[in-house]
Amino acid sequence: MSLTFQQHRLSNGLTILSETNPHAHTFSAGLFVKTGSRDEPAAINGVSHFLEHMMFKGSDTIDWQAMNRIFDEMGARYNAFTTQEMTAYYATVLPEFTQRVMGHLGQLLRPALRTEDFDTEKKVILEEIAMYEDEPSHRIYEHLMARHFEHHPLGQSVLGPADTIRSMTRDQMKAYLDTRYGPANMVLSVAGKLDFKEVVELAEKLYGHWTGPAVSRDHAVATHADRDLSMTDAKLNRTYVMAMTPGPSSQDPLRFAARVLGDVLGDSEGSRLYWALVDPAIAEEADFGFYPHDGVGSFYVSLACTAENTDRAIEIARTILFDAIKTGIDEDEIERARNKLVSGLTLSGEQPSGRMRSLGSQWMYLNQYRSLEQDVADLMAVDAKQLSDLMHTYPFDPMTLVRLGPA
Amino acid sequence: MSLTFQQHRLSNGLTILSETNPHAHTFSAGLFVKTGSRDEPAAINGVSHFLEHMMFKGSDTIDWQAMNRIFDEMGARYNAFTTQEMTAYYATVLPEFTQRVMGHLGQLLRPALRTEDFDTEKKVILEEIAMYEDEPSHRIYEHLMARHFEHHPLGQSVLGPADTIRSMTRDQMKAYLDTRYGPANMVLSVAGKLDFKEVVELAEKLYGHWTGPAVSRDHAVATHADRDLSMTDAKLNRTYVMAMTPGPSSQDPLRFAARVLGDVLGDSEGSRLYWALVDPAIAEEADFGFYPHDGVGSFYVSLACTAENTDRAIEIARTILFDAIKTGIDEDEIERARNKLVSGLTLSGEQPSGRMRSLGSQWMYLNQYRSLEQDVADLMAVDAKQLSDLMHTYPFDPMTLVRLGPA
Repeated sequence: MSLTFQQHRLSNGLTILSETNPHAHTFSAGLFVKTGSRDEPAAINGVSHFLEHMMFKGSDTIDWQAMNRIFDEMGARYNAFTTQEMTAYYATVLPEFTQRVMGHLGQLLRPALRTEDFDTEKKVILEEIAMYEDEPSHRIYEHLMARHFEHHPLGQSVLGPADTIRSMTRDQMKAYLDTRYGPANMVLSVAGKLDFKEVVELAEKLYGHWTGPAVSRDHAVATHADRDLSMTDAKLNRTYVMAMTPGPSSQDPLRFAARVLGDVLGDSEGSRLYWALVDPAIAEEADFGFYPHDGVGSFYVSLACTAENTDRAIEIARTILFDAIKTGIDEDEIERARNKLVSGLTLSGEQPSGRMRSLGSQWMYLNQYRSLEQDVADLMAVDAKQLSDLMHTYPFDPMTLVRLGPA
Repeated sequence: MSLTFQQHRLSNGLTILSETNPHAHTFSAGLFVKTGSRDEPAAINGVSHFLEHMMFKGSDTIDWQAMNRIFDEMGARYNAFTTQEMTAYYATVLPEFTQRVMGHLGQLLRPALRTEDFDTEKKVILEEIAMYEDEPSHRIYEHLMARHFEHHPLGQSVLGPADTIRSMTRDQMKAYLDTRYGPANMVLSVAGKLDFKEVVELAEKLYGHWTGPAVSRDHAVATHADRDLSMTDAKLNRTYVMAMTPGPSSQDPLRFAARVLGDVLGDSEGSRLYWALVDPAIAEEADFGFYPHDGVGSFYVSLACTAENTDRAIEIARTILFDAIKTGIDEDEIERARNKLVSGLTLSGEQPSGRMRSLGSQWMYLNQYRSLEQDVADLMAVDAKQLSDLMHTYPFDPMTLVRLGPA
């Protein structure tokens, strides 16, 4: 695969990352901003996600209908997302729309933030929060993050508390935009059929005049303790359990082993938790996985079962984890997990849109380019020894556990 | 894009179609069988879809767990589907699993049809039918197909009537399998990173001994009449309307224009039906589209609205259609639709799995290879003149209309 990686930094600090694939049929571009809920002052928690919505309400020169219509006219596949640590805006088009889509993404990131749009969108956000609060799995995740990262900014919710959203003003959002969306805190990631020189020239013309301060991130050390917490909701029929314990960060070389371990212990079919809990119908769902973050990471366990089975299901899940440390992971379990993960990675990497997202996201954490081949090689290198190192470095202890059930 | 198309026919009649992409990272293979609900005797209507389920229950040498586990061990993305006119089984893997996945697809298509599995799966199928019957949009579609194609085999349901499934025997299914799954009625489609010579040798070794009769399909001419039919269900809150009228077939050169027309009139955002019905809140949903079949085709309109608005919504939708014939379609509407369709086609064509499905499906209808470039060129060639020809050839008349509402 003849892919070429190139990078360039504009004089205003905006980094451009590019992976050219002359055999691709499409051009994919994304603007990744290193800011999310962990970077928000508590008084405006939720502003990153709210701001992401406001971008689609139009700039000074075009309204919200034109903002969406112009993407449609190019036949673009476009979207945006906000996490605890980044906000991204991206689109995939036919190569003839390279200039137009880059221009339009530039419009997208210069929002007018009109007060009437702000007030309307606030209602949409509050509805989204209310809707998520009806979902037990979301409620328990939010509560667990808040308690597991109690004195750490990762404990803040991406959507934000409803009260905070209600009292947020348009000027607070504008101040956040001006502080966090400086070009030095941003990356333009492009992939597919493209001419790097043309992309750099367009970026200079379209984004080269952007200004804003360089900013940093609070890398407070997270501290955790063993905890067993309960919430009740009489409306529920099942009990939900979710637990977190320290795991590798997005920068930790053990992150590849952590993905393999997630598949071996927690995959929805044929994993150790599946055979111990779901197959014998002790729990309806049982999952184990890995959430890597910037400088910090977690393993999680989640279960759904009847109220009567809860204690037994938790005990079985704990036994599965601690037995894995003692007896290790078998070579055939590792091979199966590796094959699955490598397939998934390879399939998403066959499209420019997948590579664009990977380039942008990985840069946010690593300040480094990684080819698909490097990621595949690191996954393929995971063996029983690495998994043993992983579980001895992160021995599932301490653990924050939350139960949410009818009683 | 350096893609190479090659084809070969084994001595038992099995056709092999291949599109090699040396720059791909994956290998995708599918077995497409030219059989579906339109090819079923009424007494066993639903057998194609039921049989598709039974394939995953194991062969003489492996049970259902191994059938699924072996795909998982390769990290395969695999699936199957049944329509009125074809049944397909496919998987995408890393190239090193070429031989193993082709062998396993061969196992898949030699089902044991064990009586105990047949009886268990029958319950699953009956539950699937019951579930679909709860969906108004599915119920109205099934009823409309049955009435629009009243004396034509396309009127038969893919899932089949529950009574027919209940009385179906394992031996009836076996007889259907032996008749319809002959190698001359099948195509092996492969795409991605592959060696054509190796694929042909493997196919000869793995599938070359398959036997079965050559079969044909009933190409009865469909006749239609203007009809306005009603069904009621007191449990519903909204009224659903769906109508069909003749359109181009899967072989008709006007099929590309029909896709553009579908987008201009019926796209969920910014189409003529959207602005006339959804934007002013006369209907909650309004869709227009195109169902191409083997030798016959339909346009459809579907609406969801309050009972009071139904007559008015139908009248407005009819006006939109007949006005389009009179005044034609504007160049900017065509351009926007073309861009959207070409983008969608190009994005799906960037992955071997998309090309494998396109090769196999198109061969079922056309007995012909079409490159992505040919499809794109034919879509790009659609203009106002072609759309006018289309609407004068298929003037939305006669129309079978079904209403399903609370009263």
